[in-house]
Amino acid sequence: MVEIGPPPREEIARRVERFQASLADLQVDGALLAQKVDVYYFSGTDQDAHLWIPTSGVPVLLVRKSLERARRDARLDRVEPLGSLRELPELLEGASAGKLSRLALELDVIPASSFLQYRRLLPGAEILDASPVVRTLRMIKSPYEMACMREAARIADRLFERIPDLIRDSKNETELAVRAEGFYRRHGHPGVSRTRAFNIEPIYGHIMAGPGGAEPSGTVGPTGGAGLGPWFSQGAGWTPIRPGQPIMVDYTAFAGGYLADQARVFSVGALPDKMRRAFAVMVEVQNALADAGRPGVSARELYDRALSLVDRAGLREGFMGFPHPVPFVGHGLGLELDEWPVITDRADFVLEEGMTMALEPKIVYPGEGVIGVENTFVVGADRLEALNAFPDELVVL
Amino acid sequence: MVEIGPPPREEIARRVERFQASLADLQVDGALLAQKVDVYYFSGTDQDAHLWIPTSGVPVLLVRKSLERARRDARLDRVEPLGSLRELPELLEGASAGKLSRLALELDVIPASSFLQYRRLLPGAEILDASPVVRTLRMIKSPYEMACMREAARIADRLFERIPDLIRDSKNETELAVRAEGFYRRHGHPGVSRTRAFNIEPIYGHIMAGPGGAEPSGTVGPTGGAGLGPWFSQGAGWTPIRPGQPIMVDYTAFAGGYLADQARVFSVGALPDKMRRAFAVMVEVQNALADAGRPGVSARELYDRALSLVDRAGLREGFMGFPHPVPFVGHGLGLELDEWPVITDRADFVLEEGMTMALEPKIVYPGEGVIGVENTFVVGADRLEALNAFPDELVVL
Repeated sequence: MVEIGPPPREEIARRVERFQASLADLQVDGALLAQKVDVYYFSGTDQDAHLWIPTSGVPVLLVRKSLERARRDARLDRVEPLGSLRELPELLEGASAGKLSRLALELDVIPASSFLQYRRLLPGAEILDASPVVRTLRMIKSPYEMACMREAARIADRLFERIPDLIRDSKNETELAVRAEGFYRRHGHPGVSRTRAFNIEPIYGHIMAGPGGAEPSGTVGPTGGAGLGPWFSQGAGWTPIRPGQPIMVDYTAFAGGYLADQARVFSVGALPDKMRRAFAVMVEVQNALADAGRPGVSARELYDRALSLVDRAGLREGFMGFPHPVPFVGHGLGLELDEWPVITDRADFVLEEGMTMALEPKIVYPGEGVIGVENTFVVGADRLEALNAFPDELVVL
Repeated sequence: MVEIGPPPREEIARRVERFQASLADLQVDGALLAQKVDVYYFSGTDQDAHLWIPTSGVPVLLVRKSLERARRDARLDRVEPLGSLRELPELLEGASAGKLSRLALELDVIPASSFLQYRRLLPGAEILDASPVVRTLRMIKSPYEMACMREAARIADRLFERIPDLIRDSKNETELAVRAEGFYRRHGHPGVSRTRAFNIEPIYGHIMAGPGGAEPSGTVGPTGGAGLGPWFSQGAGWTPIRPGQPIMVDYTAFAGGYLADQARVFSVGALPDKMRRAFAVMVEVQNALADAGRPGVSARELYDRALSLVDRAGLREGFMGFPHPVPFVGHGLGLELDEWPVITDRADFVLEEGMTMALEPKIVYPGEGVIGVENTFVVGADRLEALNAFPDELVVL
């Protein structure tokens, strides 16, 4: 395990500086951040705090709990107590040039009631959305962030090397999940794979045996698994591990706050020919996107290329989910699992060096299971570079 | 393990009926629910869906993903597809008397951007907060819900019986956490202890050895633990398990979607006298509240009683957290860990039969650890009845 330290102070300063440049473009007086991950990104602490970043001037972390811990962890000069939200207007104006007329909030994540409360507290101010700016900045990873993600990917590789042994000891999905989660947990995973979207339950990932992998699912991904019952209908459940069926392990590793997403298919005994062929096509799709992915290429082009390769192989049915395919083949990730860019034709992302993403071409066979591959990549100078090193192969026990 | 089935159809119908009576009091046309847990409570499925409950008429579950799974699981007559949010106005009005003039949304949980989107889609309609009504209804548990919570408490008891053995095999908090989490997971825990509040990371709970339990924390509870680093600063971390120190295990069990919260202190070798005495006082506080808690008693009275007992014992310093005590000694729980009522003097809750709550009197000794007890209770006819049966004792290995 590589020892990962906190984000360097100069790096936090650079992030803030870049954010301030974007805030100037937005013509706001500043941004008030409240979401734990965004606050961590710009401060270095995940304590319960608001972070006020004025468009020009010094950011101030306003801490509800714990001030001691925030002062110890934050890589900022100003870390101050916040007794009540009612103190916010005075504190923000004190940390800025004066009265606030326009400010940005994270509208995609803060609850409606908080939004309405901030609006009551700052009655004159126009409120804009800070999140697109934050998410855009966070797409490009620094060397420090890449070190964390590479370490997460190494941990994923080590887990996947052990999966065959863990499968031998496991009768069903949940038993395998217990062992896989224990492995990640011992390597520093908190049990939460943070996500930004509403209503996502941020578990380690999905372990799906045979038909469990083909269960239609409410998740945002191509598969979700059978889950534990109608009260928690995603992830590992009670589906038994049986010979000749695909065992999909799609689990997110964690190091220093950063995630690496990896999925492979294992089986006890050989899989049917159609699945072996489909797996080979999914790897081919992934590799084609990795070859094509470079600065200046749009996510849309990558998505179209994936679809055309899948069409050419006659494998469109079940591709990225069945009966309802999801409209993407990959997603950004870093501190959160649902970062930008999304590899889709529904948004305008253009690749830049240092962006990270998980590519996850998968095919669902109704009633039988799911086949596919997933790795985490970084956009290099002329292609996507995989962070995971585990071979892109079906592993037959 | 007791086999738990889905919520009975008649029970879902009763929940909807009670909710509709409250909506009539609010004088709204209906409530549009989007949060997974609320949707599950009133429908029996946790798929990605909106649930429209008109104040009079038949509820309709509008499903984004997966319609098949929602149709299988939901205990409602009307389960229909929702292609895009833009279809909402027509669908809601079709399922109601006609044009909507007032409706209720879960303002404490839906993101600001969703709120703004619903407002754009329904430009004429006044929007009220549905959550206080939902949370009030959900406070009183049905016999079905109590069966789930009793089963969760039984699972907690079984884990706690094993903790001494698990401690013997564990060098630090995380190793103990891996084993405890594996036990819960095998008994149906998804790894998520659902919470309603923003920014809470819903893990199993906190395992804290010695000084780890005294770390100041950003959590809403009295303690939070050292955690894994500034990127995830709650829960089990790397603090070693050492003789003569309190090992606080505060872990939430799960059965059929419902939670039971339990905490005990274990130690390898005896604890210092002051901690043993403090533990006895915490149990005394808990028992006094259990004796006093009956229908008609206010949460405020219970809270005051706890404080006066603690004051009388001279143990106010560190009670419910240090340096920042939290202003409560217990919290409602059920499908979520932060339900109503809260046992605090900051809100007006009056106990009713069938309410459930976790009482958790605890004392933090800076630099040394945390002492206390936690059990899940239901309000009976003349006292609080504990669901957990594990003895309220310090367990010395």
